Amino acid sequence: MPLEPAANVLSQNCPSRTVLRHLTDRWTPLIVTVLANGQPLRFKSIKEKVEGISPKVLTETLRSMERDGLLTRTATASLPPRVDYQLTPLGLTTVEPIRALRLWAENHLEEVEANRQRYDALVAA
Amino acid sequence: MPLEPAANVLSQNCPSRTVLRHLTDRWTPLIVTVLANGQPLRFKSIKEKVEGISPKVLTETLRSMERDGLLTRTATASLPPRVDYQLTPLGLTTVEPIRALRLWAENHLEEVEANRQRYDALVAA
Repeated sequence: MPLEPAANVLSQNCPSRTVLRHLTDRWTPLIVTVLANGQPLRFKSIKEKVEGISPKVLTETLRSMERDGLLTRTATASLPPRVDYQLTPLGLTTVEPIRALRLWAENHLEEVEANRQRYDALVAA
Repeated sequence: MPLEPAANVLSQNCPSRTVLRHLTDRWTPLIVTVLANGQPLRFKSIKEKVEGISPKVLTETLRSMERDGLLTRTATASLPPRVDYQLTPLGLTTVEPIRALRLWAENHLEEVEANRQRYDALVAA
């Protein structure tokens, strides 16, 4: 039985590139962050916590994450109807890598901003 | 002395969002991957290893990474002239978080693809 070639994001046609792209798209890391404790959240709560996301883009991103199997969408026929989103076991395995990246961004913000100022001053000189 | 408000990528106007965006843009994780061992690489080598990137986009991404302080660019006035790129100590601190994300994508590719097929079949039904 031939071995599957190993996935490699550096290979132009390897579909793992798309998986990485989804994981690192503009809003997915932020949505994973607000769902990271594993509890379900309603659409409205996610929208409030991920500041600045439009309802349309939130809907699209949640659908893409659901399609990839990162979260489940549960509609409850209550009055008013409610829809909850919750990370799947697979989605929960992204929490730690995404947390590391988020913390990097938050913790190195000042250093990166200082670097940019230094670079721009040099370019302008 | 008032404390700086902590950086928070969930806040709409927090500049850490831009830092996270740079770190997760289309090509930065792949460039970090090929420079991860800390050794300098020439432009041409990076372009060959990161399959499919155009010279223009590679130049732009390298410049943005240099501006953020993730890598250094060293031009040597040899014949032919050569330009080397190397991760800085700051850039090296992104290697591990990016490695975790890349491995997630490569290792969960089959599972994600199976989820997509299942989702698409349900939607079409």
